[in-house]
Amino acid sequence: MPRLSDKGLSLPPSPIRKLVPYAEEAARHGVKVYHLNIGQPDIPTPQVAIDAVKNIHDKIFAYGHSAGLETYRRKLVGYYQSVGIELGYENLLITDGGSEAIFMAMSVCLSEGDEVLIPEPFYANYNGFAVEAGIKVKTIPASIDNDFALPPIEEFDRHITPRTKAILICNPNNPTGYLYSQQELEQLRDIVLKHDLFLICDEVYREFCYDGAKHFSAMNLAGLEQNVIMIDSVSKRYSMCGVRLGTLASRNEEVLDAVLRMGQARLCPPYLAQVAALAALDTPKSYFEEVHDEYMARRDCIVKALNEIEGVYCPTPRGAFYSIVRLPVDDSERFARWLLEEFRYNDRTVMLAPAAGFYGTPGLGRNEVRIAYVLKREDLLAAAECMKEALKVYPGRTIR
Amino acid sequence: MPRLSDKGLSLPPSPIRKLVPYAEEAARHGVKVYHLNIGQPDIPTPQVAIDAVKNIHDKIFAYGHSAGLETYRRKLVGYYQSVGIELGYENLLITDGGSEAIFMAMSVCLSEGDEVLIPEPFYANYNGFAVEAGIKVKTIPASIDNDFALPPIEEFDRHITPRTKAILICNPNNPTGYLYSQQELEQLRDIVLKHDLFLICDEVYREFCYDGAKHFSAMNLAGLEQNVIMIDSVSKRYSMCGVRLGTLASRNEEVLDAVLRMGQARLCPPYLAQVAALAALDTPKSYFEEVHDEYMARRDCIVKALNEIEGVYCPTPRGAFYSIVRLPVDDSERFARWLLEEFRYNDRTVMLAPAAGFYGTPGLGRNEVRIAYVLKREDLLAAAECMKEALKVYPGRTIR
Repeated sequence: MPRLSDKGLSLPPSPIRKLVPYAEEAARHGVKVYHLNIGQPDIPTPQVAIDAVKNIHDKIFAYGHSAGLETYRRKLVGYYQSVGIELGYENLLITDGGSEAIFMAMSVCLSEGDEVLIPEPFYANYNGFAVEAGIKVKTIPASIDNDFALPPIEEFDRHITPRTKAILICNPNNPTGYLYSQQELEQLRDIVLKHDLFLICDEVYREFCYDGAKHFSAMNLAGLEQNVIMIDSVSKRYSMCGVRLGTLASRNEEVLDAVLRMGQARLCPPYLAQVAALAALDTPKSYFEEVHDEYMARRDCIVKALNEIEGVYCPTPRGAFYSIVRLPVDDSERFARWLLEEFRYNDRTVMLAPAAGFYGTPGLGRNEVRIAYVLKREDLLAAAECMKEALKVYPGRTIR
Repeated sequence: MPRLSDKGLSLPPSPIRKLVPYAEEAARHGVKVYHLNIGQPDIPTPQVAIDAVKNIHDKIFAYGHSAGLETYRRKLVGYYQSVGIELGYENLLITDGGSEAIFMAMSVCLSEGDEVLIPEPFYANYNGFAVEAGIKVKTIPASIDNDFALPPIEEFDRHITPRTKAILICNPNNPTGYLYSQQELEQLRDIVLKHDLFLICDEVYREFCYDGAKHFSAMNLAGLEQNVIMIDSVSKRYSMCGVRLGTLASRNEEVLDAVLRMGQARLCPPYLAQVAALAALDTPKSYFEEVHDEYMARRDCIVKALNEIEGVYCPTPRGAFYSIVRLPVDDSERFARWLLEEFRYNDRTVMLAPAAGFYGTPGLGRNEVRIAYVLKREDLLAAAECMKEALKVYPGRTIR
């Protein structure tokens, strides 16, 4: 039997994959499992997008342009303008989800063995793309004690080696919910320029900022025109994760040319997704206001409920819809599994994402979990209640 | 300005990319350009697939399973059964087009610097995926003089090095239209077993076999259960190239586990494409019969017309809808450009794909082009007439 490749053997499994069978088993026994572990929003997709799909009048679902339909790219320019980002349609390449955009950015910017610096905890799938691209992820720890703000810029300086070719941040951040400020981004700019790096900025949660905070795009960092690659996606903005459509944006012509060549190899992004996304650009403002208010209310409700539990600390995220939560437990992976296998509260339990999977440094995040607040408030409260009861009786709790 | 990665700098451009501006320029001047260069069929997508999309009743276009919707995978088993391939749904991973399946297969089977052997000419985008995966393409020339049959198996033996990890074939073949026989595949089996290789078999044109010839799937090679990875796609079968949906099939559990981990990193294949493809599985048999008859008639018509031109040789392909055609010209790239830039016949001209882009060996294919017979017969005849007239006056023609 032929042996798999090094990549085939070292691709990381999804951090929650191990837990899925336990959740399925619990559900099979009639247990209600509150899924705080996943980022699938329950918000409806905008009706304009659904209607556009229902009203297609194509005779053939044909190939489109490798960079995405020109009509879509041209209209997308208007969207970016509306959020204060000036781009031409030729700066945009439409991708198979934000996922492909990240992989493309890594592939064209980093050679085999090169390093990308990422503050940790970070979106675990960056690991998978890095393995596929043959590059190394180096992490710089952020701390729950200051709600996962950007690590001191000297730490970046200290971690940069001759193989470092890029810094990657997610803003607002998945999994921490932290929203980087303009000032933090300007600190990153200085270090990026000093070492002649690429800055890959994953901004797929741009619309999800709370408390009146304003998102500052890396695209608006003056002097970084040749360095910044912005990653975007329609998944969360329009609650249409399943269509798989993203954007890679850059003002660097060499980058654009290289990602287009990658795009040509895979022919084009999915057509029906582009039909939905093109129409979604006409989503009324009220949709976003409602979604924003709903998420802020959910955040307030789950953060408050969790912080009322003894020994629990949940930062108040100002963006996205995740938070990393510190729990009074020996090992959050054991705790998460125990919740699914053994704990029941009124026939209910909770599924959590152990945070260790979001860290690169071994040992970090052992007493943390990531939660996604993509459920209705009553479900979030019921989930928090479950966690409160569970932490009273979990054998590995660290407070007595 | 930071420097691109080695991959970013070496990604091959699409072989026809250079010609596109000339075709656009001609069209702008009112010239009718017959596109023999592309594989976008004019056959309508089955109505059942279009209707399924029009009748969606989702409120949310949500993430699905990373391996593809289970309903779709389960129903796909029945399709494979109907073409004589026995697979369980757990043997299938649904991908972003056949393209992603090829890239995944290369990534999990070949390590950085490993070699994949491919008979040439071959589908040019394999080059792009190989660069992305960090692997090397080694080619073995097939010859137009025997219609691009499998090169002698000793040639494979001669080209295999310690870095060779896989053989990749496309059957029926794009760009040659050659249909490999069971006997040829059994020769490949022997060499694959002898050297403990993977056999990656791209069978996306399975439905397109002519003259009563039957397609023999690599999946049915006894003794190769651990070695074969089959690539498939809905693009050509249902004329829905734009939806971007493919399949990777294998009976090797390590391969399946590794590609699933790649699949998890990019979350899931496109949902709306799966809606269309699931419904397309109910396409009536008459659709395929009509399509088959239409393509066979097109083939007969273009092959005959081309072979009537002095100095031209066009093999009669038994599969897919391409052929590599030998022309009496000095350089088919120059000829193709000249057709677009300078030649007009009744305000018409032809766009061809120079064959050199489908070869790995420098210098091969210089007097060959690839044609796709995806146009109506009258257009194919008009295109052939253009070529006939063009070859009378082309300054670089090699017969006088």
